[in-house]
Amino acid sequence: MTSTHAYAAHGATTPLGPFSFNRRSPGPNDVLIGIRYCGVCHSDLHMVKNEWGQTIYPIVPGHEIVGEILEVGSSVRAFKPGDLAGVGCMVDSCRTCPECKDGQEQYCEKGMILTYNSPDRHTGGITYGGYATHIVVDQAFALRVPLNLDLAGTAPLLCAGITTYSPLRHWGVGKGSRVGVVGLGGLGHMALKLAHAFGAHTTLFTTSAGKAEDARRLGADAVVVSKNAEEMKPYANSLDFILDTAGASHNLDLYLQLLKRDGTLCLVGLPEHGHPSPNIGTLIHKRRRLAGSLIGGIRETQEMLDFCAAHNIVSDIELIPIQKINEAYERMLKSDVRYRFVIDLGTLR
Amino acid sequence: MTSTHAYAAHGATTPLGPFSFNRRSPGPNDVLIGIRYCGVCHSDLHMVKNEWGQTIYPIVPGHEIVGEILEVGSSVRAFKPGDLAGVGCMVDSCRTCPECKDGQEQYCEKGMILTYNSPDRHTGGITYGGYATHIVVDQAFALRVPLNLDLAGTAPLLCAGITTYSPLRHWGVGKGSRVGVVGLGGLGHMALKLAHAFGAHTTLFTTSAGKAEDARRLGADAVVVSKNAEEMKPYANSLDFILDTAGASHNLDLYLQLLKRDGTLCLVGLPEHGHPSPNIGTLIHKRRRLAGSLIGGIRETQEMLDFCAAHNIVSDIELIPIQKINEAYERMLKSDVRYRFVIDLGTLR
Repeated sequence: MTSTHAYAAHGATTPLGPFSFNRRSPGPNDVLIGIRYCGVCHSDLHMVKNEWGQTIYPIVPGHEIVGEILEVGSSVRAFKPGDLAGVGCMVDSCRTCPECKDGQEQYCEKGMILTYNSPDRHTGGITYGGYATHIVVDQAFALRVPLNLDLAGTAPLLCAGITTYSPLRHWGVGKGSRVGVVGLGGLGHMALKLAHAFGAHTTLFTTSAGKAEDARRLGADAVVVSKNAEEMKPYANSLDFILDTAGASHNLDLYLQLLKRDGTLCLVGLPEHGHPSPNIGTLIHKRRRLAGSLIGGIRETQEMLDFCAAHNIVSDIELIPIQKINEAYERMLKSDVRYRFVIDLGTLR
Repeated sequence: MTSTHAYAAHGATTPLGPFSFNRRSPGPNDVLIGIRYCGVCHSDLHMVKNEWGQTIYPIVPGHEIVGEILEVGSSVRAFKPGDLAGVGCMVDSCRTCPECKDGQEQYCEKGMILTYNSPDRHTGGITYGGYATHIVVDQAFALRVPLNLDLAGTAPLLCAGITTYSPLRHWGVGKGSRVGVVGLGGLGHMALKLAHAFGAHTTLFTTSAGKAEDARRLGADAVVVSKNAEEMKPYANSLDFILDTAGASHNLDLYLQLLKRDGTLCLVGLPEHGHPSPNIGTLIHKRRRLAGSLIGGIRETQEMLDFCAAHNIVSDIELIPIQKINEAYERMLKSDVRYRFVIDLGTLR
C-alpha cells in the first residue's frame, strides 16, 4: 500500500483540506503513478458542492491526471517505471458489454467506474481522484503521455481535451466544416484549438465581448457576442455543427437556428437546473438535431493525445499550488481563469 | 379560370362551410386536377383553429389530394388528361436554392409555398387547399399516383405517408433495426406499416391499451403502454430509432431513455405548447439525439408512392362526405378515427 497525501472535502459547504489515505498495492495489471499535475475541471466543483446530488464524502476530486510511473504489476507490458502516464475520468468499466468491446467504455452498460466518487471494487470503498500524490490504476485505463508536450498543459487534455475532441470527430468536423463553439472556458478553448487543427472554419459564440482577441489567438476565425441579435443574425442556417460547452442554463434555440439542415447542436455541459425547452419547430424545419456527448473512450483518448502531440496542442493553464484550490474554485465561479487551473502536486509532497 | 366549390372556415371559432372561388387557368407548366379524395390531417385542424397563430381567413384546408388530370398546360409532358395525380403539402418553392436543388423543397431557403394558407404568387392571394373540387398546380409539384392502390386510401400518403417515410429512410431504418413508434394516429399507423415493410422490428408506444390488437395487425411486433413503467423498463437502451408522432405535449425523456447509444428520437408533431425540456443528462450519457423532420421532398414523395404501390400499402381510412367535416374534426380531437378521415369530393359536386 502507498501512503497518499491528498486534498478532500468533507461536506458540500466545507472547503477542501489535507487528507491522507492508502492506495492499494498494485495488482498484476496495475500501475502506480506518482502524480505530477492534475487539472481542475468544473465537474470537480459540481461534485464537491454536491450539485448533481450524488456526492459521497469525503471526496478527493481530480480526473485530469499526469505523472510518472513508479511501479508496475507483473503482467504490465505497456508501461515501465519512469514512463509518463495519464488518467482521465474513468479507472475501470465492465469490459465485456458491447459498449466496452467497442472502445466506448464511457457508455459502459454496467456504468464506468469514475476516477473519483465511484464504488471502488478493489477497496470496497469509494474511488479517490487526482488531487493526490499517487494513484493506482489498471493499465487498461492508463494513457501514454507524449514526451514533447508541456506536461502541466497536457493534464487538462484528459478531460477537457477528450470531451471536445470526441464529438468533433464523431460528427465529422474537418476541412470545409463550418463549426460553432459556445462558451470560452476550459472546454471551449480546447474546442477552438482542436476544430482549428482539424481545418474547420470556427466561430466562437460568447457572452463576453472582451474575449474576442484571445479567441482568435486560440483558433477562432470569427467571434460573435451571442447577446447581440444583430451579430447573430447573419449566422442563421449557416453552421454544420455547434459544440456547446456552456455549463449554465441557457436558451438552446439561439444556437439551433444557426444550424444548416441536418446540423447538430451537441451539448457537453450538464447544467444544474437544465435548459429551457427547445422549440420543436426549429428542430423540425431544418431536420436539426440536439445531441449530447460524454468524454470519449480510452482508445480515442490515446488518439487525441497523439493528435495533440503531432499538432503541439496543450491547454492554456494557470498553475497553482494545492493550497490555493479553494481560491481557484472561487475564481472559476467568476470565470476568472484562462483557461484551466492545474495543480502542481509537488506542493503536496 | 375554373369555378371551384370548396369548404372554408372564416374564423378560428366558426365551422367550415361551403365556399366558392376560381382556380387560375392552367399556365404552360400547370395541370388542372379534378379532386376525387382529400385526406384530413391534424394540421388542418390546427390551422383552421389558428393554433399556430398564422392563419389567414378564409382558409380552405387540405393537403392530401388525389384526383384526375382534367387539363394540362402546353409544356406539360409528364401528365395527360385522364391520368391520376396527387398533391401534398407544397405547391411550389424557389427551385434555385441549395435545398431545392437537392430535392429538399420542404426546407427551401425562401420557404416553400404550402398547398393552403401560403401567399399565392399566381393570384396574389392566398393558396387554397384540397377541400375543393379542383386544384391547379405546377407539374413539378404534382405526383404520379399508382393505379393499383385504393385511391381514397392513397390520399393520406401525400402527407401522413411521406412525413413518416422520410425520417425512417433518412435514419436508415431497415432489416435488423429496432424501431419505436410513439402514438397510433394517422401518422403512427403509417409509420408502423412502413417500418414493418422496411424489415424493422417495430414497437408501438401508446397510452391506450385497447389499441394493441390493431397495432399488431398494422405491423407492430410489440406494443407497450407508455404509462406503465413496468412495461417500459425492459426497453431501456434498446432502440435504434424512435419516430414520435404524438401531437400533444408530453415527456420526451420517457422515450429518449429507450434509445441505444447514438440513437435518435425524431419528432414529427408540433405541439401547440411545446414539450417539457428534455433531460440533458439522458442525451449526454448515451450520445443520444433529439431531432425533427418535416414531410419530405417531391422526389422522395414519388419514391414513397412507388414503394407503397410495390408493397400494397395505403392508409386505413374512414370515408366521409364533405358535409361531415366539422363532425370529423370533433371526433379527431377525441382520437376517434381509425386512422384517417378522407373526404369524398364527389359529395361537393
